[in-house]
Amino acid sequence: MKFRIVEGDLESFIAIDREASWSFVDEEVKQKLTFEEYCVQHRKLVETLYNLNMENKIFLAVSEEGKVLGAAWVGIRLDSVNYVPIGYLYDIEVIGEARGVGVGSALLAAIEKFCRARKVERIALLTPVSNAVAIKWYEKRGFQVSRLYLEKKLD
Amino acid sequence: MKFRIVEGDLESFIAIDREASWSFVDEEVKQKLTFEEYCVQHRKLVETLYNLNMENKIFLAVSEEGKVLGAAWVGIRLDSVNYVPIGYLYDIEVIGEARGVGVGSALLAAIEKFCRARKVERIALLTPVSNAVAIKWYEKRGFQVSRLYLEKKLD
Repeated sequence: MKFRIVEGDLESFIAIDREASWSFVDEEVKQKLTFEEYCVQHRKLVETLYNLNMENKIFLAVSEEGKVLGAAWVGIRLDSVNYVPIGYLYDIEVIGEARGVGVGSALLAAIEKFCRARKVERIALLTPVSNAVAIKWYEKRGFQVSRLYLEKKLD
Repeated sequence: MKFRIVEGDLESFIAIDREASWSFVDEEVKQKLTFEEYCVQHRKLVETLYNLNMENKIFLAVSEEGKVLGAAWVGIRLDSVNYVPIGYLYDIEVIGEARGVGVGSALLAAIEKFCRARKVERIALLTPVSNAVAIKWYEKRGFQVSRLYLEKKLD
């Protein structure tokens, strides 16, 4: 499967990400939140985060036929522990039929190249502890666990 | 040691937090960043995050003599996975001489009470994986690891 990496805009990211991210919403939350309500919240959150960053970059992987096979969004922002600019990776998404052919790796490489050009020394992301596939994927590509996200459910 | 929990403002939080947070900045980063430069970045980051939240609350633990023994800041914001409001705990800080007497627990209890009153069902925070004391402290109080923060240093 041939593809190329091109720059995208926020709308193209929202379109691919809202479908993919819905699968990570807790079942318990889904009982109270319809997909349409979630789409409104998703856009609001993405736009708020986007506008907060010092700079943003979105990359798309596009097939020879022009189909979007994957998308990635990185935002340059101040790290909350070290107060230096980092590349925060909001998501790398690859559509089901385009998995296993290097689309995600190519998107990550484009992000790393962009960050290096900006003299940004670290990239980071958060992933659910239950997503073993993603954790392994990132660790294989040089990522290490540096912080834990702790959560408490209030009665 | 007697103390009471009162509401504080952002300035009171910045004053106590910038000293405490400096100790968590990487040694490597400290070689390039003076404490004064860090203070400018710290204020910028705290103010940006503060203004982004739907609501904020700062609690202070104050001794009978009026000395600030500890501070905590919680922000109500949309969770980036579940798109429901959560109480994000930026920090609970207790000064060295006031540790081990329940100041941190009292600050956490005040935050939980505030979040429950706002119908917020979860509170969350990030901590360095190296901070075993903090992780144990939060786990003892009902927190669980739900996400991992992965980081990669670019060459």
